Amino acid sequence: MGLRDEILEQPAVVRRLLVDGRLQIESIAASLRTHPIEHVVIAARGTSDHAAIYAQYVFGARHRLPVALAAPSLISLYGVEPRFGRSLVIGISQSGESPDVVGVIAAARGQGVSTVAITNTSGSPLATAADHSIDLLAGREQAIAATKTYTAELTAVAMLSAALAEDAGAFAALDAVPASVEAALDAEGDAVRVAGARAAMAGCVVLGRGFEYATARELALKLKELARVIADPYSSADFLHGPLALVEPGFPVLAVAPSGAAAPGLLELLGTLRTAHGADLIVISDRADALAQGAAGLALPAGLPDWLMPIASIVPGQLLAFHLARAKGLDPDSPRSIRKVTLTR
Amino acid sequence: MGLRDEILEQPAVVRRLLVDGRLQIESIAASLRTHPIEHVVIAARGTSDHAAIYAQYVFGARHRLPVALAAPSLISLYGVEPRFGRSLVIGISQSGESPDVVGVIAAARGQGVSTVAITNTSGSPLATAADHSIDLLAGREQAIAATKTYTAELTAVAMLSAALAEDAGAFAALDAVPASVEAALDAEGDAVRVAGARAAMAGCVVLGRGFEYATARELALKLKELARVIADPYSSADFLHGPLALVEPGFPVLAVAPSGAAAPGLLELLGTLRTAHGADLIVISDRADALAQGAAGLALPAGLPDWLMPIASIVPGQLLAFHLARAKGLDPDSPRSIRKVTLTR
Repeated sequence: MGLRDEILEQPAVVRRLLVDGRLQIESIAASLRTHPIEHVVIAARGTSDHAAIYAQYVFGARHRLPVALAAPSLISLYGVEPRFGRSLVIGISQSGESPDVVGVIAAARGQGVSTVAITNTSGSPLATAADHSIDLLAGREQAIAATKTYTAELTAVAMLSAALAEDAGAFAALDAVPASVEAALDAEGDAVRVAGARAAMAGCVVLGRGFEYATARELALKLKELARVIADPYSSADFLHGPLALVEPGFPVLAVAPSGAAAPGLLELLGTLRTAHGADLIVISDRADALAQGAAGLALPAGLPDWLMPIASIVPGQLLAFHLARAKGLDPDSPRSIRKVTLTR
Repeated sequence: MGLRDEILEQPAVVRRLLVDGRLQIESIAASLRTHPIEHVVIAARGTSDHAAIYAQYVFGARHRLPVALAAPSLISLYGVEPRFGRSLVIGISQSGESPDVVGVIAAARGQGVSTVAITNTSGSPLATAADHSIDLLAGREQAIAATKTYTAELTAVAMLSAALAEDAGAFAALDAVPASVEAALDAEGDAVRVAGARAAMAGCVVLGRGFEYATARELALKLKELARVIADPYSSADFLHGPLALVEPGFPVLAVAPSGAAAPGLLELLGTLRTAHGADLIVISDRADALAQGAAGLALPAGLPDWLMPIASIVPGQLLAFHLARAKGLDPDSPRSIRKVTLTR
């Protein structure tokens, strides 16, 4: 199984988790509901940290919970445990092996706080350290760059939200996600063309806001690790605070701009970037007006609510990073220097 | 007053805040101590968001408080207020005008939660919205790129921590900071030479960990807005999860690596980056062994505890970004496209 196979496998991975993982997640949620949760702390690194950012918006928008992304080095470097108090503490890691993420979960459990692991490796140190463990059921991920475990992590977060809220409507909306992920794969032809025309790309900015900020972060990471592009991800709100100075005529700007509350502001910014700054805009969207702003576009399927769209909206970006690596003569299955499992302390 | 004047003004700005701002901060802390605080939520954008990252480590390491960096768009885009519960909510903004940061503070105050504004503009919407307001007393910042208000924001956070803990030792340690900021300005000659030799720099990575992660983020932003360098900031822990693939022989890596708990791991990484990857290392440190790892170094004064070092350690980076802009023929006082006050909603 190569990286492209794992990208193409995602509709099946998401469908399996929705069907085979629902009982475990509903059972965990039932147990979590017996304790008061006033805020959430999430520990994660790399791609899984982007699933944590997605969770920040999901738990914020759907449960009104403040979410802190843990600084694991507070424990591992400075030897200080946060007082987790009335929090729910979640660790996300595909391998379940990162010692500093495990350290946060172990500290929280030691304080008697509810802990949940989200991992693709049942029996891993993370799964063992937590009270509750959600198994992503994604099958072994062989490629160094994470793809199917990322979409599975997002799906698990969305399912946990639906289960905590006992929200049948949310589960019904989740049922439409596998078909949307499948439809997002149709962007591959366009991804090949966009990549072929941009084989010289050395740097770019990736924009996304709200729920799609996680997508911008993850797409930027794929571009770095696969295609060696210095890709700088920004919320379109923060982008105006300085990084806009980078944009000159022809500078590539990727924008993840599907329908939703963030779209109007982002569309206005895209118009400015194109007309006033001459950016080379590549737009990922289900909206015709957004795609029309770009020099190139990667189409998303319509129909998902904005809180579920990130599970599909990363897919064209994964394909773009893969084909950009190919267009540059790089091997996306063997990115330089990096390992599948990183044991940061 | 140009940008360089404001960089050079920083020892005086920090000294003024330590002397003239102490009573206001101690009085605010006394009031805050009358309510239970179980976690902290901070809203900020741009440079001030890097002061928020510093605060995440200060309140985490010194007070064992989980700190969430707010996603202001949850309120401004999605119309959902977090339940702030037993949190302390802080808004940081030099202008005090950013509507989405003000929105977070207003929502928290509406819920009866303690709120603190940290701003250089008394009477601004942010200062007015909060229960308590810390005035940075930095004098008007005229340059578009923030420098003296950043070091003042860090100083205010450190003073608030010292006051909350009624920690006379921390205040005594703070008294040494202005002289260290002054000594950090001595790096200017080296910054001119490092910049002159790297006028062609288009992209780089900036590494820092723990308390210095904030410095890495802020230095990367200065490089973007002043010198148009696509600078990608990373905690050295996250860097191994993918972005390491960017580094090839001659690729510039800036590392903020002063003494402290994070130093040994970072030094080991620097050794690998230099010998195995051939990176062009620029090291900012007070340690001779760290500086010796670099092709170039910018020296920091020794003697500050690691939690206060970020107030001095950003200074050589500010000078480097300023002189890199000059070496590229850019005007650091007029960065392209960006404005001093950004009214993101």
